[in-house]
Amino acid sequence: MSRPEYARFADIDDGLVDMTRRVGRAMNRATQSLLDADLALAESVIAADIPLDAIASGLEESALALLGEHHMVAEELRAVLGAWRIAGTLERMGDLAVHVAKAARMRYPLPAVPVELRGVIVDMGAVAQRMVEETGIALTRRDVVSAAQLREMDREMNRLHREMFTIVLSPAWSHGIEAAVDVTLVSRYYERFADHAVTIGKRVVQVVTGQPYARRRV
Amino acid sequence: MSRPEYARFADIDDGLVDMTRRVGRAMNRATQSLLDADLALAESVIAADIPLDAIASGLEESALALLGEHHMVAEELRAVLGAWRIAGTLERMGDLAVHVAKAARMRYPLPAVPVELRGVIVDMGAVAQRMVEETGIALTRRDVVSAAQLREMDREMNRLHREMFTIVLSPAWSHGIEAAVDVTLVSRYYERFADHAVTIGKRVVQVVTGQPYARRRV
Repeated sequence: MSRPEYARFADIDDGLVDMTRRVGRAMNRATQSLLDADLALAESVIAADIPLDAIASGLEESALALLGEHHMVAEELRAVLGAWRIAGTLERMGDLAVHVAKAARMRYPLPAVPVELRGVIVDMGAVAQRMVEETGIALTRRDVVSAAQLREMDREMNRLHREMFTIVLSPAWSHGIEAAVDVTLVSRYYERFADHAVTIGKRVVQVVTGQPYARRRV
Repeated sequence: MSRPEYARFADIDDGLVDMTRRVGRAMNRATQSLLDADLALAESVIAADIPLDAIASGLEESALALLGEHHMVAEELRAVLGAWRIAGTLERMGDLAVHVAKAARMRYPLPAVPVELRGVIVDMGAVAQRMVEETGIALTRRDVVSAAQLREMDREMNRLHREMFTIVLSPAWSHGIEAAVDVTLVSRYYERFADHAVTIGKRVVQVVTGQPYARRRV
């Protein structure tokens, strides 16, 4: 492959890493808006999703243009198609940050998270943040080690998701059904966010090793 | 493009239509297992997800092989990449059917759906069924009309999702928090299933018209 195409490959990777930073910031702000019932912060997350979607579309079009320019060998194809799909996954992670921010906005000026669940949400936000950072590392270093670390962090997220259910379903729960429904959905958004990060880790492994994508059992 | 590649394009399309049928059957059975607390039916949905994933992987590998064989023009690339992504979306719709079946299994031998919500679940199942059939029609006919119909059906699904919340949050709700949490998640699975069907409709439009994918605002 000649020099200019390498440059474009690198551009696409840079774009993906940029998306991981934006998605990380979005989920971090969304978590804080939820904890503090901060409407302006929630609105900033919702507004920031528009440029994120534009970057994803731009990356997909660049990948398509690169494929159209010349015939690629299998390894190059896997790299471009992997990037194309990772852009879509990061875009979806951005949507989940927006869902969290909208949960904060919907209950404003009341907090959407009852006091007993603040700890779980703080932890979920922290794990989400570490996971999206790890996807950035995986993309930068083409690092297969990250995939294992992402699976480990996903187990931690699943544990937090179960902890949330334990609290909501305990006899001590005094916040009624609406709050239970709200936090169930919010917790599900974090859990899906983590699943998508694991998928990105697997896709990076696929690109690096040339192995077909191993599907996650649901 | 020479004859054999056209044949392979057609094979990929046939594979996608086959996936729509399997996904439709899975969601239909999952709905029935939920309504009847039918454990064997729920298990059959969970087991049927393995061949569905295998078909998705096979289609992705075929698309990759097709791309590797020779250089394609933009229109052909959009078709192959569109098919590649639609396979992934149908696989995810199959996962959501599995989630519904697992909700039925988790509460067995008790029904997971309280009596007041049976009507909503019956309707959600019917809309999901019509939507996945419509994606099959869109793929077979390369039909841009289906995209509009899918959006219309998605509005109906969203209306049912809101109706579910109205029932769960009404003062008459007597089934407690656990049932409320269960049906919130189940309803969310149907709503996401519908979103994915809309995405497939948009992807078909993208392939047929050559227009970039119009992202759905969350």
